Amino acid sequence: MSTWEDNVRKVIPYTPGEQPNQPDMIKLNTNENPYPPAPGVERALRELETDTMRLYPDPTAGDLVHAIAERYHLKDEQVFVGVGSDDVLAMSFLTFFNSEKPVLFPDITYSFYDVWADLFRIPYERPALDENFHIRKEDYFRENGGVIFPNPNAPTGVELPLEDVEDIICHNRDVIVIVDEAYVDFGGTSAVSLIEKYDNLLVVQTFSKSRSLAGMRIGFACGNAKLIKYLNDVKYSFNSYTMDRTALAAGVAAVKDQEYFEETCNKIIETREWTKKELKALGFSFQDSKSNFIFASHETCPAAELFAALREKHIYVRYFPKGRTENFLRITIGTREEMQKFIDFLKEYLK
Amino acid sequence: MSTWEDNVRKVIPYTPGEQPNQPDMIKLNTNENPYPPAPGVERALRELETDTMRLYPDPTAGDLVHAIAERYHLKDEQVFVGVGSDDVLAMSFLTFFNSEKPVLFPDITYSFYDVWADLFRIPYERPALDENFHIRKEDYFRENGGVIFPNPNAPTGVELPLEDVEDIICHNRDVIVIVDEAYVDFGGTSAVSLIEKYDNLLVVQTFSKSRSLAGMRIGFACGNAKLIKYLNDVKYSFNSYTMDRTALAAGVAAVKDQEYFEETCNKIIETREWTKKELKALGFSFQDSKSNFIFASHETCPAAELFAALREKHIYVRYFPKGRTENFLRITIGTREEMQKFIDFLKEYLK
Repeated sequence: MSTWEDNVRKVIPYTPGEQPNQPDMIKLNTNENPYPPAPGVERALRELETDTMRLYPDPTAGDLVHAIAERYHLKDEQVFVGVGSDDVLAMSFLTFFNSEKPVLFPDITYSFYDVWADLFRIPYERPALDENFHIRKEDYFRENGGVIFPNPNAPTGVELPLEDVEDIICHNRDVIVIVDEAYVDFGGTSAVSLIEKYDNLLVVQTFSKSRSLAGMRIGFACGNAKLIKYLNDVKYSFNSYTMDRTALAAGVAAVKDQEYFEETCNKIIETREWTKKELKALGFSFQDSKSNFIFASHETCPAAELFAALREKHIYVRYFPKGRTENFLRITIGTREEMQKFIDFLKEYLK
Repeated sequence: MSTWEDNVRKVIPYTPGEQPNQPDMIKLNTNENPYPPAPGVERALRELETDTMRLYPDPTAGDLVHAIAERYHLKDEQVFVGVGSDDVLAMSFLTFFNSEKPVLFPDITYSFYDVWADLFRIPYERPALDENFHIRKEDYFRENGGVIFPNPNAPTGVELPLEDVEDIICHNRDVIVIVDEAYVDFGGTSAVSLIEKYDNLLVVQTFSKSRSLAGMRIGFACGNAKLIKYLNDVKYSFNSYTMDRTALAAGVAAVKDQEYFEETCNKIIETREWTKKELKALGFSFQDSKSNFIFASHETCPAAELFAALREKHIYVRYFPKGRTENFLRITIGTREEMQKFIDFLKEYLK
């Protein structure tokens, strides 16, 4: 080994879901939205003058920050934007989790949390979800260096009621509590309403799921102005201009079309409820999901087998083959037609 | 102060050049390219289907990596891409500079280096440039935790000859040496040719200057495959998808149009040489610049005064009012017409 390797930060990276590209595929593996972005996004991108690309974008991402603030009835200084919620969360770990005490997050959760903690050498502990994959709020009522959990949780889809979220925040006023709401728009209740009340709360959301913009990389955080200022200081110490001109334009257009947003979210919720019934009838069990996916296990057919069989038909779902989740598949909700084909395949396969 | 603030990483961020937006302005303050991106960029952006924005982009940025590798006669695994060279450099500091010994960079240089070092708590020392703002290579022939310098240097524009760059690399085989070539395409000699020979060399470049894509946020690094792998591991531990679909498409189109690239770089070089003559005739002095800017000082008129007078006429240049640079202005090379107006103003003002 070269001696320069002694100084290298060696990490085990997060593995994103695969991005297959088959013309006939049904892609239910990375929780993308099956509907295109709001019509205004196409217009906004078409109207951008390519000549302006020679100039740096607005480092404050002012228009996008303002559009988000307006939508959530916040002040601009209560909003931070980044390159997808992963960028926002990475910056948040770096900014807020600098204690010697462990940061707390569930044992079954978004598998990037421990990767960020390892990257930045942050100690952490992972209280176990209960036997029904629910967060036990009392596990977070103890000394720690910060708290983070998704709500609804991923990959389980289970929502923690807002009063329990608030209880966790109340028991942790001396550290930052991050509620990662990547999936909240599919029927969950947001904690954004609590940020005026608790200066230690950061709520993170994304445009990748409910706003159909995974390909544009836009995420945001809401919190009190002081907290957002600290986050921006770290961001400006990392990269002055994270959001490019196209992402800024697309993001503003997406957030302004509330009607389209509600329409597509509602369609996904309807399809999810239909899928739940079909899956139950086929012998699957799962906790009630408030997200755009269902985390399900079959009574007889092992998840590994189903995963492979689906894959062979170019139906892609996500499988986390270890520990307590090894017999579960995470199935993103696609269009009604896609889910019909998925269910049809299962009916045939499980016969 | 709330107790949660104890755990906050408190930093003093980098201050980017201001981004004024006056219709009649002459913007010579952030080293942008005065010419639009290659014509293929417009086409590539127009051809993108907005519907695909609902899907995540390729996390490996494969097409862009391949286009860059092809252009520089490298293998794909020798190329890393990021959200501007700032993102690439931030990731590099995090990945490679983990020694307890100080990282070395010049006292007068890109003012983001010490910000990254402070952010990641990396010790550093800053050997002084000589009285003519040249790097003294011998200053880097000593124990350290890594070396980084821009070549040509910023904001001085001075190039270190390639044999001196190689000499610095040779004297530092046990650490990573990063050559930041943001401005190399305006007449400098790249160290990319040395990466096969030295496994501790990382060369970083950007699409923001010579490829007129500051607004799209694209930078890249070249190095041996092992080094690039370490960098990718850290990137995948930070954010799986840093490059959005539009940046990937625009970047590929830009790098493929070699003819346009050479044409615009040559125009800027010509205008720079013309500007040098005019500035000299007006009583300015400066080191010879191989970049798309000139770092100049006037024999009688203080930089602060000139900066303000120019600004009043909506001619924006960059001014770093401290230490050895407090009597210098960094003047980006615009179009010939812009530089004519700039020189005309100076002629009138200094009369």
